[in-house]
Amino acid sequence: MSKHISIFGLGAMGTALAAKYLEHGYRTTVWNRTSAKATPLVQQGAQLASTISEGLNASDLIIMCLLNNQAVEGILRDALHALPSKTIVNLTNGTPNQARKLADFVTSHGAHYIHGGIMAVPTMIGSPLAVLLYSGGPFELFESIESHLSLLGMSKFLGTDAGSASLHDLALLSGMYGLFSGFLHAVALVKSEKGTTAIGLLPLLTPWLSAMMGYLSSIAKQLDEGDYATQGSNLGMQLAGVENILKAGEEQGVSSQMILPMKALIEKAVGEGHGGEDLSALIKYFEVEKVLD
Amino acid sequence: MSKHISIFGLGAMGTALAAKYLEHGYRTTVWNRTSAKATPLVQQGAQLASTISEGLNASDLIIMCLLNNQAVEGILRDALHALPSKTIVNLTNGTPNQARKLADFVTSHGAHYIHGGIMAVPTMIGSPLAVLLYSGGPFELFESIESHLSLLGMSKFLGTDAGSASLHDLALLSGMYGLFSGFLHAVALVKSEKGTTAIGLLPLLTPWLSAMMGYLSSIAKQLDEGDYATQGSNLGMQLAGVENILKAGEEQGVSSQMILPMKALIEKAVGEGHGGEDLSALIKYFEVEKVLD
Repeated sequence: MSKHISIFGLGAMGTALAAKYLEHGYRTTVWNRTSAKATPLVQQGAQLASTISEGLNASDLIIMCLLNNQAVEGILRDALHALPSKTIVNLTNGTPNQARKLADFVTSHGAHYIHGGIMAVPTMIGSPLAVLLYSGGPFELFESIESHLSLLGMSKFLGTDAGSASLHDLALLSGMYGLFSGFLHAVALVKSEKGTTAIGLLPLLTPWLSAMMGYLSSIAKQLDEGDYATQGSNLGMQLAGVENILKAGEEQGVSSQMILPMKALIEKAVGEGHGGEDLSALIKYFEVEKVLD
Repeated sequence: MSKHISIFGLGAMGTALAAKYLEHGYRTTVWNRTSAKATPLVQQGAQLASTISEGLNASDLIIMCLLNNQAVEGILRDALHALPSKTIVNLTNGTPNQARKLADFVTSHGAHYIHGGIMAVPTMIGSPLAVLLYSGGPFELFESIESHLSLLGMSKFLGTDAGSASLHDLALLSGMYGLFSGFLHAVALVKSEKGTTAIGLLPLLTPWLSAMMGYLSSIAKQLDEGDYATQGSNLGMQLAGVENILKAGEEQGVSSQMILPMKALIEKAVGEGHGGEDLSALIKYFEVEKVLD
């Protein structure tokens, strides 16, 4: 594949992607619903596509980075005739099923589809700190474009299910929101006392959280083996600890909102006779009915 | 202070504390409501106190590690005559106000009080990985017993407010529960697809969470300065991401329970016109009315 690329969608992330390819000397064609957003890139040498077809025709490798997958589908439907033999790499945020449906749609029109999830903010694009998850297939398709994709950051291929990249992307985000929820709660607790700072908490909190991250592999092992026998602090003991957090929140005037779902699950597990098991036992309360469109 | 110590409370943690002092050649006196629990320690050389007074009289330095602070108060009230000039180090889990009240009670009876929080499981006691937070005062009191306490793990003195150790202990636990909540959610999402494992997620999740931990210092700076101007992904954009997590949960049959409080706060902030700010802006929703006994 030549050093030609088309980028659809010039939000902060799409702009960063296009700028990186320009930097590497690619003939970079850009398209955005509001073309004014392309001006800085055009000044750096990008070609502005005035129509969707023009954008698709300009390159074999097409990157989509739009607001949502409905916008991606709208663009593709607008120029079906230009799709055959193109490779669409869709980096738009969305759900696994959306990615799977787009993969079916694109391949049924004679084109190739890879979905991606960008684990980075725009300023990180091009650095080894940016991780990009890809899935869809076959693997040979990914292999054939990997050298182009690797200019954006570290590429990880997660298999031929087009939904897998989104699923892992959202799983990592869920992990991040847990970390940030706990951090805000911890800061709110210490800042309820005069003279404390969030920065001052970090020398205690950071090593503690790093130590707790070290336990994730033993929790993961329990989760995979379905064996929740206690190795440390059982759920009955942990319930007492969580109750102290809530009581301290009342005393200090700090909301315990972030920990309430955890408390509810621990209470439920203890109530159902699992008080002697580890925290990993809570995984059984995550399975719910599927809601499909 | 001589190498004499008394330990009240022989749960898993109290037993580990007593065993560590025995290992270091202390004359270790132990007391437990159910004295049978002391048998293994007595076999290792501990002295069994048959009454509370006997346990208090045996040493100048007394460590309490009981089920809760009500139990600590009960024990102290039972033997007020034995309190004067003793140093009570209370490592019992509880709230900051409970620690402050016990400090007042103990000092009003002519004894000294330090409260502590153990950031470790029993098997870690004595290793540098075990961190013990202490507060209460004055500092000279802590200094005079630090060499004894440091046998249990790394000691951190957090000031003369007896409640500070518990407050920080509970803040660190809140941070930990956030991390574990997010981890369980992430694992539940990926395990909704056949052939995936929790262990298999770690090579992606661990570096990601480590990278996100690197952001805690910039979030902390925003929290301390009260300046929530966006540096990366604003709340409006994050709301779209969180909604994708919920939608993916519906598609995959995975409960999004753990992230609901975070979603509620982001929605609230966006609704109140803070969609252009960073996640740090959510701290304003943690202040609530104090509920005092």
